[in-house]
Amino acid sequence: MTLVVQKYGGTSVADADRIRAVADHVVRTRRRGHDVVVVVSAMGRSTDELLQLAGQISAEPPARELDMLVSAGERISMSLLCMAIWDLGEPASSFTGSQAGIVTDTTHGKAKILEIRADRVTEALEQGKIVVVAGFQGVSTEKEVTTMGRGASDLTAVALAAALDADMCEIYTDVAGVYTADPRIVPEARRLKALAYEEMLEMAATGGRVLAARSVEYARNFDVALHVRSSFTWEPGTWVKKEEEVEKAILSGVTHDTSEAKVTVVGVPDKPGIAARLFRALADEAVNVDMIEQNVSVTGLADISFTFPKADLSVATRITEQIADELGAARVVSDADIARISLIGAGMKSHPGVAATMFETLAAEGLNIEMISTSPIRISCVVRAADVEKGVRALHSAFELDTAPA
Amino acid sequence: MTLVVQKYGGTSVADADRIRAVADHVVRTRRRGHDVVVVVSAMGRSTDELLQLAGQISAEPPARELDMLVSAGERISMSLLCMAIWDLGEPASSFTGSQAGIVTDTTHGKAKILEIRADRVTEALEQGKIVVVAGFQGVSTEKEVTTMGRGASDLTAVALAAALDADMCEIYTDVAGVYTADPRIVPEARRLKALAYEEMLEMAATGGRVLAARSVEYARNFDVALHVRSSFTWEPGTWVKKEEEVEKAILSGVTHDTSEAKVTVVGVPDKPGIAARLFRALADEAVNVDMIEQNVSVTGLADISFTFPKADLSVATRITEQIADELGAARVVSDADIARISLIGAGMKSHPGVAATMFETLAAEGLNIEMISTSPIRISCVVRAADVEKGVRALHSAFELDTAPA
Repeated sequence: MTLVVQKYGGTSVADADRIRAVADHVVRTRRRGHDVVVVVSAMGRSTDELLQLAGQISAEPPARELDMLVSAGERISMSLLCMAIWDLGEPASSFTGSQAGIVTDTTHGKAKILEIRADRVTEALEQGKIVVVAGFQGVSTEKEVTTMGRGASDLTAVALAAALDADMCEIYTDVAGVYTADPRIVPEARRLKALAYEEMLEMAATGGRVLAARSVEYARNFDVALHVRSSFTWEPGTWVKKEEEVEKAILSGVTHDTSEAKVTVVGVPDKPGIAARLFRALADEAVNVDMIEQNVSVTGLADISFTFPKADLSVATRITEQIADELGAARVVSDADIARISLIGAGMKSHPGVAATMFETLAAEGLNIEMISTSPIRISCVVRAADVEKGVRALHSAFELDTAPA
Repeated sequence: MTLVVQKYGGTSVADADRIRAVADHVVRTRRRGHDVVVVVSAMGRSTDELLQLAGQISAEPPARELDMLVSAGERISMSLLCMAIWDLGEPASSFTGSQAGIVTDTTHGKAKILEIRADRVTEALEQGKIVVVAGFQGVSTEKEVTTMGRGASDLTAVALAAALDADMCEIYTDVAGVYTADPRIVPEARRLKALAYEEMLEMAATGGRVLAARSVEYARNFDVALHVRSSFTWEPGTWVKKEEEVEKAILSGVTHDTSEAKVTVVGVPDKPGIAARLFRALADEAVNVDMIEQNVSVTGLADISFTFPKADLSVATRITEQIADELGAARVVSDADIARISLIGAGMKSHPGVAATMFETLAAEGLNIEMISTSPIRISCVVRAADVEKGVRALHSAFELDTAPA
């Protein structure tokens, strides 16, 4: 008998009708002869509603009590889903993160999984039951209820799939899989049949919002095959697995991200240690720097540019201005109107020329490239935010991403 | 240092403002030098809303999952209350029934407390924290989440007070205490300063809805002094304690109850075992019979009347008609329009004549007494439902219950 772990997000269980539809799908999976473990998020926007309630009570609610509060959300969705499964004639038991043995560290609100002690889950499976587990939550080594941050229900599913040695882990969501580009921008965007963990990680890091990076990392580390698919259409979606198991294509997709801002220090006298000085100061204020680029001109003056989340724009500008002053730099330029466009593909490693084609394509559209960064399977360009959709469409077409590889 | 257990019902924590008001009161209690354990119900009507959601999913939801579902309600209220307490500058920790060591049997939906293992509560108190515990819920000997039925948050509070050897147990509710009669019917009804456990039990059994009988029994068995009071006025309310500790009055109050119906079997040939036959058949169908009265006339024919919850009227009538047929009784009369009026007072034991005065008072008002039942500290009369308010007012006045005993 194979074991399938299925994870359903908040929109998939948003109301009684949706919960019944999910139960129906779970029961069908069961009746095709699989053992089934279901991981479920809180219904619709219920976590946000609980947080709002907390906000009415306290400006700075203690983290332990916030975790106690929001963990109620999955308790509700998981027990309702079990009721719906029983109603269709199959036995089911729900387990909180604690009951399912999701043991975490003691960091409330963004706990890390330390260990899975899934004895109660295994026992229930052996009794022939469908098991429903609360996503997003666990129990700390100090026996406190913890939560693991936004999107952590995926992580619960992957971790359980790894611990139970499941045959696959299906992530049901409100999109039909992973696309070659955002379909809202590129109508010809094509759903990928499969891509490698590393490609998915690069996509997650550059604006693809389908799966959170840490779930993909966990899946890669424990070799858990992921199947991302829609709970609205029930059609096959996109597999995420080992590179060797994925049919080779040069490129998997083009992503974009408008969530970052850029700061440039212009005309810094080029001396050892200036970059260290600046980025230590930014790190001390928890500014999460992403891309960094430094150019030294023949005059001996350097320009340093870096990107980071827009929310940190004022703190990053303030710190950079202080340091620029100390270093005798000419000036500091902040810029919130940037976007990053990235090409991702494991096949890039063996196909030189992708970068050149990318730059030519953007140039032909009149886009100025302000920064470039690369990894073995990714090329990213920073451009004007206003140009991002045009750039994404041009690249998608230039690399013929709308056509499946032969 | 004294230890106070305070219990707040659903209306006391119905919204963010009410929760903040409760936190303020809890913190004041703490700052007067008490250790405080708070037991809290789910917010307002949230338990009903969760049950409604379950009803949309399944006509017969499994009991285990129902308990998992509704236990989310206290999880929400208790964590919010802790946040509000922290916000006022005092440390607080919330504990689910399971974490607080409320160990129950395995009867989902109406579990019985077997044991209290309050180690985590004690530890938190020793750390100087205010402890907030979820009412109504526990963990079974099989490690399953259980709930203990409507009104069981009082029971949680009393059981914790007993286990922790608390100095008092305050039950905060939406009424200001226990009254000599229902103030909606008798405007002159007076709040009692104190009454004995036994009197409170008789009141609970005859229509007084302030405290559930099993909480009072638990308090009596473990000698926990209860203080019933309002979370809206914060005024002193009514103490419930040992009879020896309560100032003697002949009567404590008059209660009424219109929730029962009556069935009478007329003209049963009087043979040994007829009552046994009838009430066994009713018990087998789970009809919860309250008062029973049997009269044998000189003709050798008996009349048997009994009362029971109105919801059981059709099943009780059906069973009684079957048995009446077998026994050769003349006929069966069902009656849903009855009410019971009861006088309650521990002083009754040493004051003969209360019953006579009661019957005279009702007669003077033109009320026909259809059944009578007594205990050492209670006299109940069944009358027409339409007459109940008139009867209660007349008795309240005849026994001068509006005047505190000298």
